[in-house]
Amino acid sequence: MKKVAILGSTGTIGRNTLDVIRRHARDFRVAALAAGANSRLLEEQVREFRPRLVSLDRAEDAEAFRKTVRIRGLRVLSGLEGAAEIGGGSESDVVVSAITGIRGLGPTLAAVRAGKTVALANKESMVVAGPLLRAAAAASGARIVPVDSEHSGVFQCLGDGNRPQVRKVTLTASGGPFFRTPLRELKSKSVAEVLAHPRWKMGRKVTVDSATLMNKGLELIEARGLFDLEPGELDILIHPQSIVHALVEMRDGSVLAQLSPTDMRFPIQYALTYPERRESGLPPLDLARVRTLEFHPVDVRRFPLITLALWALRAGGSAPVALNAANEVAVEAFLEGTIGFLGISEILQAAVDGHSPSRVGGLDDIYEVDRRARERTLRIIRKKV
Amino acid sequence: MKKVAILGSTGTIGRNTLDVIRRHARDFRVAALAAGANSRLLEEQVREFRPRLVSLDRAEDAEAFRKTVRIRGLRVLSGLEGAAEIGGGSESDVVVSAITGIRGLGPTLAAVRAGKTVALANKESMVVAGPLLRAAAAASGARIVPVDSEHSGVFQCLGDGNRPQVRKVTLTASGGPFFRTPLRELKSKSVAEVLAHPRWKMGRKVTVDSATLMNKGLELIEARGLFDLEPGELDILIHPQSIVHALVEMRDGSVLAQLSPTDMRFPIQYALTYPERRESGLPPLDLARVRTLEFHPVDVRRFPLITLALWALRAGGSAPVALNAANEVAVEAFLEGTIGFLGISEILQAAVDGHSPSRVGGLDDIYEVDRRARERTLRIIRKKV
Repeated sequence: MKKVAILGSTGTIGRNTLDVIRRHARDFRVAALAAGANSRLLEEQVREFRPRLVSLDRAEDAEAFRKTVRIRGLRVLSGLEGAAEIGGGSESDVVVSAITGIRGLGPTLAAVRAGKTVALANKESMVVAGPLLRAAAAASGARIVPVDSEHSGVFQCLGDGNRPQVRKVTLTASGGPFFRTPLRELKSKSVAEVLAHPRWKMGRKVTVDSATLMNKGLELIEARGLFDLEPGELDILIHPQSIVHALVEMRDGSVLAQLSPTDMRFPIQYALTYPERRESGLPPLDLARVRTLEFHPVDVRRFPLITLALWALRAGGSAPVALNAANEVAVEAFLEGTIGFLGISEILQAAVDGHSPSRVGGLDDIYEVDRRARERTLRIIRKKV
Repeated sequence: MKKVAILGSTGTIGRNTLDVIRRHARDFRVAALAAGANSRLLEEQVREFRPRLVSLDRAEDAEAFRKTVRIRGLRVLSGLEGAAEIGGGSESDVVVSAITGIRGLGPTLAAVRAGKTVALANKESMVVAGPLLRAAAAASGARIVPVDSEHSGVFQCLGDGNRPQVRKVTLTASGGPFFRTPLRELKSKSVAEVLAHPRWKMGRKVTVDSATLMNKGLELIEARGLFDLEPGELDILIHPQSIVHALVEMRDGSVLAQLSPTDMRFPIQYALTYPERRESGLPPLDLARVRTLEFHPVDVRRFPLITLALWALRAGGSAPVALNAANEVAVEAFLEGTIGFLGISEILQAAVDGHSPSRVGGLDDIYEVDRRARERTLRIIRKKV
């Protein structure tokens, strides 16, 4: 019986994780849940899964939760400190890291430092602090198992000891809702159109990232951190069916690929049960029914953020931190209606133009680069609007 | 430096094996070559690769070879005994088993008993004598690494220790030249049309088997022997592009697949270098150029030999031996023009109807079942023509 803590329990990954646990009640017990602002859903989760510890973003939400929910022995924390306590606490064996954005870094690092098995869905942690997380994992003995379907695919293909035999790792991208949309039509795309992803049901931020392909750019940087690959060993392929999640080309030219239906519960369950596998009870892949798998090169003219991501991948250091921060701010501005869809890439290009990559040391460095990039991006947006 | 012996050096697999060795002159040395009747090509191979030991099928060919080729220190053997001596001899570390048909069994068994790494391309050995070969390998410490692209794919996906996690193994079939041909047009297909395979360049026997899909049926039985799978854990999928060679579905529903360009040198090299991999120098897979991978269920109405193969797979014992023998005889009769293309399945059906599956013990049992099935099949052909 593994004890599981979930950072971000009310988001898409958190809810899918709880569904996997629900299907394997004898294998897992929920030890702790950290949520954002959705007190009502957190209460439902608490009543069903009976964790001993929860956390909400704001102190006042936590206070209200304590008063209204009234479960004996339930501790209610708040803020990033609360989430970090849940990440690093002694109650859990596995920590699912699923808080969106750089806010997930602190709690994730706490879990890694505590030597947990970390099921990593928060890609920004690995994007901005890959070397830091790897060093911490090496020191504590923590195992980081990716939850992103593409990285889970790579992880599964690599197996044990295959790493030195690898020539190239390819992540697939569905291409998002605008894979076939001409450039001139992209300008007028509304928030609703951007959020209507053809394959995956995900949070708003990652769905926008999927439409700009920045999601895939961040995943390249994440893959570099997770698997210690050189930039030249990484590639992207558009694959609209989202069945093949990753391809690993060995040095002899043989390729191993990982496939599964488009359902996050596959990689989530794999990360929870790793190194074992369990029956999932999910409908299996039926390729005779899918019938056709297509692959296309990426059109960087229509998806310029890929070029920016490749720059950050190669530059390393502060570059991924700055790019990620600028992207978080720009996507926020888009979702609020302040800028249009193509505005995201214009803003990011300007933000990156103003950044000289430098080395980053610890967490403080990273947060400082992040803060400055956010301010710079906000200034650029204000000037533009 | 690995020393390699090749059983069937002048056939398609043998020639491709020598090309792989030519590309890795520092990794491999050719120790011995067993050929059939192609003395002229064997001479070329001997002059290029300088083995110390060769063999030809017929004693008179061997005698002539000795007289005309005149290489000091070269021993020239003959017959299946010669091939078996090459398979089990002390000169080699790796034995490539690529003699077609049940004739390959004796030399293959000799190699397994001698504890070699056996690169197995002769699928009939595993079809008729799977349990025998497995027991011999367990006793001698021989490693059997499959060379068939589909089984090499399964082998690569299984990795170390993945076996207990497997739910289903799927072999792909190109569908051969008649994948889209209506049943009524199959009757009149000529030998030349049958031999015009759209994807693979192979020997005549296996190309006919590919057109009837018997090849895939035999491969299911081979997979059972190689990987110790239950019949219900095996499946076939038509995949006309022949890029994905095998798919392994794990018990959680995640699928690992192996892909490579349609070139036998990939699996041959993998078997030779196993457990390492080496740069192959072969053009890599470019999925963005292939663009589309299709998958279809098998139409057993048009390919009835699949049904017979599934019967033999489930029945086990003498059934695969009898089916394989009847198929070798029927394909020979088709290649000689004695029967038409659809005659192959009619003859096989009749041959199988007259067979009651029994247990088989050792090699003598197997050869006896084989002999009787051949006689019965010849009688059926004579009656029919």
